[in-house]
Amino acid sequence: MGTQTLTYGSVTWIDIIHPTPADVENLQERFPYIHPLNLEDVRSPMERPKIDVDDNYLFVVMHFPLFDKRLSLSRPREVDLIIGRGYVVTVHDGVLKPLTTLYELCEDDELQRQRLLGRGANHAFYTIIDQLVDYVLPILRKVDGNIRDIEEDIFTRDTREVIREISLVRRDVIALRRIIRQQVPIVEQLEQVEHPIIHEDLEEYFGDIADHLYKARDIVDENYEIITSLADTVDTLASHRINEVMRILTVISVIMLPLTLISSIYGMNVPLPGQPEFRQDPNSFWLIAVFMVLISLVMLWYFRKRNWL
Amino acid sequence: MGTQTLTYGSVTWIDIIHPTPADVENLQERFPYIHPLNLEDVRSPMERPKIDVDDNYLFVVMHFPLFDKRLSLSRPREVDLIIGRGYVVTVHDGVLKPLTTLYELCEDDELQRQRLLGRGANHAFYTIIDQLVDYVLPILRKVDGNIRDIEEDIFTRDTREVIREISLVRRDVIALRRIIRQQVPIVEQLEQVEHPIIHEDLEEYFGDIADHLYKARDIVDENYEIITSLADTVDTLASHRINEVMRILTVISVIMLPLTLISSIYGMNVPLPGQPEFRQDPNSFWLIAVFMVLISLVMLWYFRKRNWL
Amino acid sequence: MGTQTLTYGSVTWIDIIHPTPADVENLQERFPYIHPLNLEDVRSPMERPKIDVDDNYLFVVMHFPLFDKRLSLSRPREVDLIIGRGYVVTVHDGVLKPLTTLYELCEDDELQRQRLLGRGANHAFYTIIDQLVDYVLPILRKVDGNIRDIEEDIFTRDTREVIREISLVRRDVIALRRIIRQQVPIVEQLEQVEHPIIHEDLEEYFGDIADHLYKARDIVDENYEIITSLADTVDTLASHRINEVMRILTVISVIMLPLTLISSIYGMNVPLPGQPEFRQDPNSFWLIAVFMVLISLVMLWYFRKRNWL
Amino acid sequence: MGTQTLTYGSVTWIDIIHPTPADVENLQERFPYIHPLNLEDVRSPMERPKIDVDDNYLFVVMHFPLFDKRLSLSRPREVDLIIGRGYVVTVHDGVLKPLTTLYELCEDDELQRQRLLGRGANHAFYTIIDQLVDYVLPILRKVDGNIRDIEEDIFTRDTREVIREISLVRRDVIALRRIIRQQVPIVEQLEQVEHPIIHEDLEEYFGDIADHLYKARDIVDENYEIITSLADTVDTLASHRINEVMRILTVISVIMLPLTLISSIYGMNVPLPGQPEFRQDPNSFWLIAVFMVLISLVMLWYFRKRNWL
Amino acid sequence: MGTQTLTYGSVTWIDIIHPTPADVENLQERFPYIHPLNLEDVRSPMERPKIDVDDNYLFVVMHFPLFDKRLSLSRPREVDLIIGRGYVVTVHDGVLKPLTTLYELCEDDELQRQRLLGRGANHAFYTIIDQLVDYVLPILRKVDGNIRDIEEDIFTRDTREVIREISLVRRDVIALRRIIRQQVPIVEQLEQVEHPIIHEDLEEYFGDIADHLYKARDIVDENYEIITSLADTVDTLASHRINEVMRILTVISVIMLPLTLISSIYGMNVPLPGQPEFRQDPNSFWLIAVFMVLISLVMLWYFRKRNWL
Repeated sequence: MGTQTLTYGSVTWIDIIHPTPADVENLQERFPYIHPLNLEDVRSPMERPKIDVDDNYLFVVMHFPLFDKRLSLSRPREVDLIIGRGYVVTVHDGVLKPLTTLYELCEDDELQRQRLLGRGANHAFYTIIDQLVDYVLPILRKVDGNIRDIEEDIFTRDTREVIREISLVRRDVIALRRIIRQQVPIVEQLEQVEHPIIHEDLEEYFGDIADHLYKARDIVDENYEIITSLADTVDTLASHRINEVMRILTVISVIMLPLTLISSIYGMNVPLPGQPEFRQDPNSFWLIAVFMVLISLVMLWYFRKRNWL
Repeated sequence: MGTQTLTYGSVTWIDIIHPTPADVENLQERFPYIHPLNLEDVRSPMERPKIDVDDNYLFVVMHFPLFDKRLSLSRPREVDLIIGRGYVVTVHDGVLKPLTTLYELCEDDELQRQRLLGRGANHAFYTIIDQLVDYVLPILRKVDGNIRDIEEDIFTRDTREVIREISLVRRDVIALRRIIRQQVPIVEQLEQVEHPIIHEDLEEYFGDIADHLYKARDIVDENYEIITSLADTVDTLASHRINEVMRILTVISVIMLPLTLISSIYGMNVPLPGQPEFRQDPNSFWLIAVFMVLISLVMLWYFRKRNWL
Repeated sequence: MGTQTLTYGSVTWIDIIHPTPADVENLQERFPYIHPLNLEDVRSPMERPKIDVDDNYLFVVMHFPLFDKRLSLSRPREVDLIIGRGYVVTVHDGVLKPLTTLYELCEDDELQRQRLLGRGANHAFYTIIDQLVDYVLPILRKVDGNIRDIEEDIFTRDTREVIREISLVRRDVIALRRIIRQQVPIVEQLEQVEHPIIHEDLEEYFGDIADHLYKARDIVDENYEIITSLADTVDTLASHRINEVMRILTVISVIMLPLTLISSIYGMNVPLPGQPEFRQDPNSFWLIAVFMVLISLVMLWYFRKRNWL
Repeated sequence: MGTQTLTYGSVTWIDIIHPTPADVENLQERFPYIHPLNLEDVRSPMERPKIDVDDNYLFVVMHFPLFDKRLSLSRPREVDLIIGRGYVVTVHDGVLKPLTTLYELCEDDELQRQRLLGRGANHAFYTIIDQLVDYVLPILRKVDGNIRDIEEDIFTRDTREVIREISLVRRDVIALRRIIRQQVPIVEQLEQVEHPIIHEDLEEYFGDIADHLYKARDIVDENYEIITSLADTVDTLASHRINEVMRILTVISVIMLPLTLISSIYGMNVPLPGQPEFRQDPNSFWLIAVFMVLISLVMLWYFRKRNWL
Repeated sequence: MGTQTLTYGSVTWIDIIHPTPADVENLQERFPYIHPLNLEDVRSPMERPKIDVDDNYLFVVMHFPLFDKRLSLSRPREVDLIIGRGYVVTVHDGVLKPLTTLYELCEDDELQRQRLLGRGANHAFYTIIDQLVDYVLPILRKVDGNIRDIEEDIFTRDTREVIREISLVRRDVIALRRIIRQQVPIVEQLEQVEHPIIHEDLEEYFGDIADHLYKARDIVDENYEIITSLADTVDTLASHRINEVMRILTVISVIMLPLTLISSIYGMNVPLPGQPEFRQDPNSFWLIAVFMVLISLVMLWYFRKRNWL
């Protein structure tokens, strides 16, 4: 989408969405001291967040969750941040709402721009990360609500649906947990970094972000524990239910088999005992039928006695 | 249900059950400094407890468990508390017994009113929360008794019933654990808040509530562990039992199948070996029958030898 | 059974077994300052141990395990203790050996009575609890021996028996763990209580009891871990074994089915191909038989190739 | 086997293998202050290690693992140690190599004897325990190698064999873990004992033994975790594989059943539709056969569509 | 492959790939004070990393993971390091890229050689280990990517494939975890070693390596947790799916069986009720067919009512 720039006083926010090679080249020209490896990182997706500390700038890669409706799964979205003397660069793909909203707000509203950029680049840097971290909590609250619903419906709703829903929520919680946990050491490092660009008095601010992140981590850990417990419960229920069904069905089969054998025996093309009278006797059929019913009853009685039915 | 008000000396307790828009408007008029967002929170259900600290008041959202007989499940019930200079506001839906009982007691009995409100709004605030937290312990004690019963009956009662009961208790313990755990950071924060409205000498009191909450958390954690262990035990037993049944039933099927095959063969409309003598010989049937019994015995012997039966 | 009393010097031990209302009334008359709620607790069984501290006395409810042979399960047995100035009251149901033995010993033997009661009520109180806690260790040692036996026999003994034994031991370990863990905070509280009745120099003694209880807790935790591991191992083995059996049995069924189909086809009352020659030909049977054997062999070969057999 | 004695200077090592009553009596005569209960312990096997501290001696019971090839399982072997002024007594059953080797070495070699006994009884006591603890590491290293092999072969070797091997290794790791963990508090106590017989400067030595034991515990804990993970992996694989087989076999059965029904229908002794022409028509058979093939194909198509095949 | 030597100033790097007995002899001649046991260790593969500290040298055995494509599994590769005054010896099998690359770089490039060896043997020793540890991170990042893919595809891709992939990744993570964890105590020991050869100022450097190793351990622990969670999720899904299939297939079988019984009954060679009219009646077949359909419908209705279908 290209590079957008906002300036207030001596501080500039350079926002790059879907960086093209040209965008990166511009960046390189403007800040020649940025290490080529970092510019390489800007262009390609990164698997893990990281911080690189340089004399002239800090390069930070972070991931924030975005719920992908198609997958029903929160996916990590990368934001690359560069903070140097008098500027902040953000590189992302334009789908993280808190970031785009913040930019638009500052673009439209002089006051907001002042609030963001008027207190220095480091403060702007802090505010951007803070907005992104705060955005995680509502996502978690939605997961909370889903879990609460499952809790209530676990016995009453159709097991198949509940299993599917639990699996979906669990997968999402696993993914969220992973994303949130990976950001923790990054913010902890930001808290400890002693760098002229990040003035010491910001330490407290990053401590605040870390607190929010810890809270998010605790919530997602708790959610993980609960969804796992619920999955265990529904597993037990489902496997018990299916076992019961299979057992009864198998008992039915086993009762049918000897009857089929008997009728098959009387269908053999050899003289049956008592022939030929038996073969002609119209009562034979009823004799056999009574015998079959008797066998069934004996089996039913036995199976019930052994508590198989 | 509307707003009820109790006053003793300079302290007022405003108790709002199922707040209507009118109730909230009254509140706003009376305390114009309450933030609209907090009033919004009062009106709508909240997924998670929280504390908002303002210069003029504290806004606290907490949840307490109430056993829902229909669901056989403890559900969180929200209580919103606002404490300001000289007043406490409680907003709830009128089903939490300790709260309604306390209100009625103070309404009817001058002495109780004095005891609750006579020592300041902050003390009333503390007492209300204390009553609510204390009410959690008898709920947990009932769960304790249920677990003890399951422990004793796990081998002797019908497995299906035990599984159902364990699942119910487990779900309830999971829900209780979740509710109790979420209140812990709230009370911890109340303990640490340094605010003119909550005098410092109340810190100790909230420490006391925190202790009760820790105890409740420990009990529910222990219960969770035990019910999980019992669920494991009964799972093993049940799956072992069902497997045994299925195995024996399958063995019966397998023994029936070759016999059916044999009788089916003798039912084919082709000349059997030894024809036509065999087809006419009245002993044929007995020969076949003996052959069938022999096959069954060989299979039984083999299955027993391989320890399948 | 009524109230028994032992006195030495100024110290009295009142031992009440299965308290009747009369026993409780006597107690109330003798010590009018005992709170009615505590006397209520004495009469009814308590789910959880607890301590109530009063100016004039301490009321302690503890549970100790007793192996119930009928259930093959350790059950908690309640002991209520009241310690006041110059007396100790114990209320129980007369089945905890260390307590009854101690009483009988002191009843018969002057020296033992002096040893128990001669050093003050608090020392007697300590000794009684110590005896009860020490009695837990031999119970755990027996569990230890059972686990060791299971460990050795897990592969060689019949799986069904091993599963049953593991389930029994696991249930017992879960119950023991629960009882022991619940006593820990009680003894920890006794260690910290600063009360004129419990002189400070007893703190160390209760520290000693706490150490024994910690040791018991560690042993039972270890036992729980090990029995769970063994249950996992035997679960894997049993489910693998049953799966193997089911697989082979199913393969046998599947081989039988096409043969039955073939013989059933030749039993149809329609002209078979090659009729009427085929129907009369004495070789038909052998042709069909060879065909059946061939099909069986092909299936066996295929199943073995796919590693299903 | 009787009592053996080694002396160097003022220090004596009394080594008793399989103590007879006479051996124990001799011991009692020689050291009359040894408590009868400890001598009782010497004679009978102990379930758990322990330390008894007396004014005149220390009595230590420890267990060390020995691999029992018949059981494929490490079994605890008891060593009782008594250390007093100028002597060390070891009681065991003669199968722990490090102990017998050490004795033989000191018996044959003057220098070794000096090295062991020349620095005092406490140093000999330390050395004996050190030798026994060190012997645990090679046992663990062998387990390490077994786990490595399983890791590599888990996909390629026959599942049944892998399951059996994992079960064996897991049982062995559980047993080793149990033995090693139980020794830890004993050595920790030895480190802290302040006793004239164990001079203070030995504390450091026992700290060294404790370190080795901690290392052994860490290795065995790690092994336990890994073997459990591998067991989980192979469980998933095996149950998935068996499920696949069962599913396909069941599909085959289900396809056979309607065909058998059809042929059975045409074998009924009632006029078939279109009688008598149909019964005589040589094409009837082929019509039925085509119908059967069609039904099979429809079922196969349906099962494949539903992804059951 | 033999011994290669690099020298810069007074520092020599001796790199031995696949040591032959001659290589080891040379080493012994050059550094006669190296203990024969260590040289023995050089020649044979070691199961576990270790450090031996001698007055004249340090002997370190470490393992680093290398992905074996054939096994789809990371395998530990041993590197033996000896550092003495003025020299570093590395013994390995030539497949660890960071080591061979470093050697080649220093061989070809004077500057690199100076950078590595110019700051002393201890610095070279540190650099070599650092290179090897740093090489672990990209391996873990690849695993990270694999897990991310599985997370996304778990519901949409074929279950069988997903299970196989998860099993492969899990096995790899277990192996990696094991290798990384075993190196941690080695590096921690290096950090604490106080030895004239490793100057104190290197402590900080080894602290740096330890930090990288901790990070790697955290990543691999996290990966283990996540892949286990995903395996649980897919297990539940797969077993649920297979159960559903089996249930429906069994229902089909059970519906077929009574129909087969009926047709088999009418195939018996005995007079059927209503004989001979029924046997001749062309409507008999349709009567039976309707009866069969009715039975099927009743069963279907019953199974659906009981929620078995």
